[in-house]
Amino acid sequence: MNYDIVKNYTLLCDFYELTMANGYYKSGLKDKICYFDMFFRSNPDKGGFAIACGLDQVIEYINNLSFSQEDIDFLRSKKIFDEEFLEYLKDFKFTGDMYAVPEGTVIFPNEPIITVKAKAIEAQIVETFILLTINHQSLIATKANRIVRAAKDRTVLEFGARRAQGPAASVLGARAAYIGGAGGTSCTLAEKMYNVPAGGTMAHSWVQMFPTEYEAFYSYASQYPKSCTLLVDTYNVLKSGVPNAIRVFKELGINDGAIRLDSGDITYLSKKSREMLDQAGLTDCKIVASNSLDEYIIRDILHQGAELDLFGVGERLITSKSDPVFGGVYKLVATEEEGEVVPKIKISENPTKITTPHFKKVYRIYCKDTLKAEADLICVHDEVIDESKPLTIFDPDYTWKRKTFDNFKLKELLVPVYKDGKCIYDRPDIETIRQYCKDQVEEQWSEVKRFENPHNYYVDLSQKLWDIKYEMLSRD
Amino acid sequence: MNYDIVKNYTLLCDFYELTMANGYYKSGLKDKICYFDMFFRSNPDKGGFAIACGLDQVIEYINNLSFSQEDIDFLRSKKIFDEEFLEYLKDFKFTGDMYAVPEGTVIFPNEPIITVKAKAIEAQIVETFILLTINHQSLIATKANRIVRAAKDRTVLEFGARRAQGPAASVLGARAAYIGGAGGTSCTLAEKMYNVPAGGTMAHSWVQMFPTEYEAFYSYASQYPKSCTLLVDTYNVLKSGVPNAIRVFKELGINDGAIRLDSGDITYLSKKSREMLDQAGLTDCKIVASNSLDEYIIRDILHQGAELDLFGVGERLITSKSDPVFGGVYKLVATEEEGEVVPKIKISENPTKITTPHFKKVYRIYCKDTLKAEADLICVHDEVIDESKPLTIFDPDYTWKRKTFDNFKLKELLVPVYKDGKCIYDRPDIETIRQYCKDQVEEQWSEVKRFENPHNYYVDLSQKLWDIKYEMLSRD
Repeated sequence: MNYDIVKNYTLLCDFYELTMANGYYKSGLKDKICYFDMFFRSNPDKGGFAIACGLDQVIEYINNLSFSQEDIDFLRSKKIFDEEFLEYLKDFKFTGDMYAVPEGTVIFPNEPIITVKAKAIEAQIVETFILLTINHQSLIATKANRIVRAAKDRTVLEFGARRAQGPAASVLGARAAYIGGAGGTSCTLAEKMYNVPAGGTMAHSWVQMFPTEYEAFYSYASQYPKSCTLLVDTYNVLKSGVPNAIRVFKELGINDGAIRLDSGDITYLSKKSREMLDQAGLTDCKIVASNSLDEYIIRDILHQGAELDLFGVGERLITSKSDPVFGGVYKLVATEEEGEVVPKIKISENPTKITTPHFKKVYRIYCKDTLKAEADLICVHDEVIDESKPLTIFDPDYTWKRKTFDNFKLKELLVPVYKDGKCIYDRPDIETIRQYCKDQVEEQWSEVKRFENPHNYYVDLSQKLWDIKYEMLSRD
Repeated sequence: MNYDIVKNYTLLCDFYELTMANGYYKSGLKDKICYFDMFFRSNPDKGGFAIACGLDQVIEYINNLSFSQEDIDFLRSKKIFDEEFLEYLKDFKFTGDMYAVPEGTVIFPNEPIITVKAKAIEAQIVETFILLTINHQSLIATKANRIVRAAKDRTVLEFGARRAQGPAASVLGARAAYIGGAGGTSCTLAEKMYNVPAGGTMAHSWVQMFPTEYEAFYSYASQYPKSCTLLVDTYNVLKSGVPNAIRVFKELGINDGAIRLDSGDITYLSKKSREMLDQAGLTDCKIVASNSLDEYIIRDILHQGAELDLFGVGERLITSKSDPVFGGVYKLVATEEEGEVVPKIKISENPTKITTPHFKKVYRIYCKDTLKAEADLICVHDEVIDESKPLTIFDPDYTWKRKTFDNFKLKELLVPVYKDGKCIYDRPDIETIRQYCKDQVEEQWSEVKRFENPHNYYVDLSQKLWDIKYEMLSRD
């Protein structure tokens, strides 16, 4: 691999992680075992769920985690770190455990999606990269999934490289979009690096380069007769673009070509274009739309009867424009004291910023009849649930809201990824992840999948965990 | 340099650039000289201007532009490219000219900020990387500048790495934020790669790691007495955090420490904290605020009398959350036919998507008395303006709106960066760029710098250019 977008990002950490690490080293806390959870607090776009994505890049990062001599010299130049600590960094690597939900998993606010159990310094230094990677890719996978659902059975292609926030956002965003359900990308490097199918049509510049639009179309179509999408809006869609496309398709006998609309009133132009193509006998010619699309516009133009077969979605997908931040956080939830797990809590004036303490596990509860997901239950790590007995769960805030399951099965969401610093996770390929994501979304009720005002999926705490949390909260 | 975030991004192009390139090769158009402009259509956040940023990474990219054997093998596997074309790619490099506005320049919609003059294939392949780099960094520099202006003379630190859209967005975003006026970053790698000063405070986890908040503060402050910012909201800001901070600062004789507020009502808490610190004699102790800040919130809490000295701004800066897309485009504006520059235009059903044709240059007009920028004038490349005579400009849409300058001077905005494939630009260091940006913003009237409803800065066309454009528009 010639491209080192992900190679060694050890210094891609917040500086305070290093000053704290130096502090832990000097305070004798460096080997203290800590448990950190990554979780997020609300779904992007006020949706009903999110899609987890980015774990594979976290694994790449951890596998490559080490400070080069150059890194250490750089840190020394800051004149704030102890020499002993800098020496210690020379052999630094990750030796802890990690649990994570597989990529493509449907996830909900306030449940752990990654848990790191490691020595204080190790657990602290990996914070920033884990957060930025999972936050970014989960954001884009979630957005792509919304757009794909809006498009019904039509293909959505990710066209956003030129508006991505930096080079990594374009390739990793293309990867996440594909996992979330996009059918491909315009970004060539995303195919080479991550096997996301890359393709494309033509730019306005192609049309402008030739003396006439007809000549431009003719030249392109004769060179690419098998995958020919002609961009019809350089001059005038209905007066020039579509008639020239029809003329070229007819002359060259191309029945399965496509035209692309990139400006104007897409609904109107697509209906008129469809009529013109059909009248010319080109009923198999497809119509592609691009131009600042997202799930809301796609839903609306399809309601209006737009005649479209494919969507190219750019800036609003690759940046998740309507909600460009996935607010995952990474919080200390427990430490070990003499081999015992001791839960830790962060209290806050903002109730939503209060953490759920302890080393935990998460079960997804399925109805055995419908196979739909009904709720998630967060438990203490060593709890066992008897699937043969009815299970009652309750809302952690409104505890009188209770629900009992009689006919259910459980699935644990977090799987082991690292054990004692060794990756023990069988990393699936991108097609497997994409299919898994599709299956995961299928398991959700359509009420949860609504774009606006979705049903609030239950994420509850076990009685044991609830008791521990509320005992700690009332202590202060 | 150990980190190859920018190394060889040749394949970071939209796939259609390669299919068009192959098409140009086969159509005999590969050596046709083309002129492409990069420009943008509206200012982020409805502001009065934007800040150009990212040119240095474009130069890195062009200097490294080449297809490896592996790249070519990958392209061959797509079974769409001609063998002759793939052979041609082996020796591919950029041999053209480039003009650009320096980084830190105040820029306005619809004026060229980069012009590429090159053979068709070369000019086409660099499109995506130029756009994504300039779009991304200009977006963040512009946002940072807005936030810095809202904070008046207080320092703004960029804290957003964990919410950045991928790893490159965190380091390049930190670079752009610093150019736009931020005082530093939390991202360690941004200092190592781009000399953006990195620093930081402490996380809640540090406080939680110790038996008591007091012990956590004491340990940190005794290790870092010279740059000690204590995070006071892990348990209760006014009852526990601030009193413990005061106790530790007094015990250790630290008069120039700081406290950080990361939740709750920042205005109220900062006022109360200020009182408590002052009563304890810690009048030099600073107060830092973080927690989802942006220019609007900073402006508001300062209006409310918040007692704050520094701001840590995260997700809303690093993603430009309120407007996360900088919509720069790259359009063919001319070709050469037998050595003559022939202007090209793209017409559209959306009037804002109509391009201004021709190889152009841009003058900024300054009032000689105030030294403030008054307007920009876009001219044909070979126009000369006589500065000794009054200059009348007119609005390109509302042509009766005219303005005459008597006492003015001109500055050309676009400078040569490449000549015949060779970089002839003296790349300034980041401190020089940052200062230049500050000077550029100083040149603007405060009416243009308003956050909302700014004065619409004039960007006009010369009579010659206007005549050419309107002749081409009326031709169809």
